[in-house]
Formats: sequence, structure tokens, C-alpha cells
Amino acid sequence: MEPTYAITESLALINRSKIAMLGSVDKNGYPNIKAMLNLEHDELNTIWFSTNTSSKRVTQFHQNPKACVYYVDQERFMGLMLVGNLEVLQDSKSRQRLWRPGFEMYYPLGVDDPDYSVLCFTSVLGNFYHGLANHTFEV
Amino acid sequence: MEPTYAITESLALINRSKIAMLGSVDKNGYPNIKAMLNLEHDELNTIWFSTNTSSKRVTQFHQNPKACVYYVDQERFMGLMLVGNLEVLQDSKSRQRLWRPGFEMYYPLGVDDPDYSVLCFTSVLGNFYHGLANHTFEV
Repeated sequence: MEPTYAITESLALINRSKIAMLGSVDKNGYPNIKAMLNLEHDELNTIWFSTNTSSKRVTQFHQNPKACVYYVDQERFMGLMLVGNLEVLQDSKSRQRLWRPGFEMYYPLGVDDPDYSVLCFTSVLGNFYHGLANHTFEV
Repeated sequence: MEPTYAITESLALINRSKIAMLGSVDKNGYPNIKAMLNLEHDELNTIWFSTNTSSKRVTQFHQNPKACVYYVDQERFMGLMLVGNLEVLQDSKSRQRLWRPGFEMYYPLGVDDPDYSVLCFTSVLGNFYHGLANHTFEV
């Protein structure tokens, strides 16, 4: 598999995904997974999610920033895993960037709700597969 | 949310899922995720997957058995995470139990292919969510 093919297909997979799976490591060393709304990304380098500040994931990432993000297209037997580090942000610019109509459902006080946080994931490496072919690349 | 409701809905979610996301921790302490074919489970207690013995996941689980399994229904905003431990099996009974027509695509030598392994996951705890409601339970 050509690197350019894997990266092109990876970006297309992200762009058509409604959700991404976010991986973290809990305080006992166990992997955790949660589906997140697919909101924004900058190529394969940076991915942003929104979450509640009070959520278990925010506590976990404050303790351990190691993370992964996974996208899957089960009809095409295609998947992308990005491994990297995650930072919890609460600055005004990040909050406004990620805010979407209807987010009051999650954050009743609006864009300045203290329970609204932005998760900023930075990739270190990626693995894209399609069928039986695998391609690992640095990001 | 009643515990019985969460468990009934969790089992229904597993039964209608084509894939499950398997979480592991790599040698550098990063969480990893991979989609697996949803094959067999015993209630919420034990879940079996098939994989290549030569795969990265088998190496990871030999080094660190901590695992999680995640099922998601993105249309219904519903998800189930099971956290527990995973054992790599190669005994004949386990191989035969998991074997499916067409698996020669992955394991050309058939049910005795040394590159065919069974992953046996045992749950410790679960978390089921539907919309904004969360329920954590011991398994």
C-alpha cells in the first residue's frame, strides 16, 4: 500500500465518519473506549472533541494524556487508528471553535459553561487498514 | 436507569452488532483500538474473538492482559464498554468453537493453522449509556 494512498483514504474515512472512538487509559491501567461526535480535525495531525468537564475521560486525561482515536467503516472493512497525546482545553477560542447548534443539551450554560471542555488530540503515528492490507505511518 | 434495563439493552446491542472495538495497551503505555468481528459471547461475562497469532494485538495481550470491549449504535446514541482481562488461546476446542466458513481467507491452513488464535475476554465491569443516561455495573 502506498503511503499517499493510506493517507488519502484515511482523510476520506475521517470526513465521512459521524463518530470516532476515543481510547484512554484509566487509573488502574485498563484501556477505555468511548464514542465521540466527529467534529473537527486538521489533516491527520490534530483532532478536537467536545466533552463534559465533569466526565470520567477528563479526569483520566489529566492523569494520563496517552490516547488513541479510531475510525471504522464496517461495510468496507476499513479502519484508521491514530495514537498520540491529548490535552484538555477550556480557553474561549477552543470552546467557540467547537461549539455547535444544540450543544445546550450537553452544556446548558452555553459556550462559557464550566462543564464544557475541548479535547485536543495530537497524533504521533497512524495505522490504516483495508481488508487484509495494513499501513503504519508517522504523522 | 434500572440495572436490569441496562443489562437487557447491553445484550441486545451486542447481539445486533457486526463488530466490536477491542482496546489494549501497547508497550509504550498507549491505548490501542481495533475493530473485530463480533462472533460469540456468554452473556456479558465472556467474549471471544479470532485473530492472527502473528498480529500486534496477540503480542500486546501476552505482555499486558488488560483490555476493554466496546459496542456502539450510533443511530440510537447507545454504547456499551466492558473492561476486563484477555487471554490468548490456541487449544483445539477454542479454535473449533470460533471457526466460521470462509476463515481460510485469514488462516489458510485451516482450523489448525498456527497463525490462528482465539482471544478470550472476561469482563470485570461494564458501562452502558443511552443518550445522556449512564449506568455502571459489575459483571
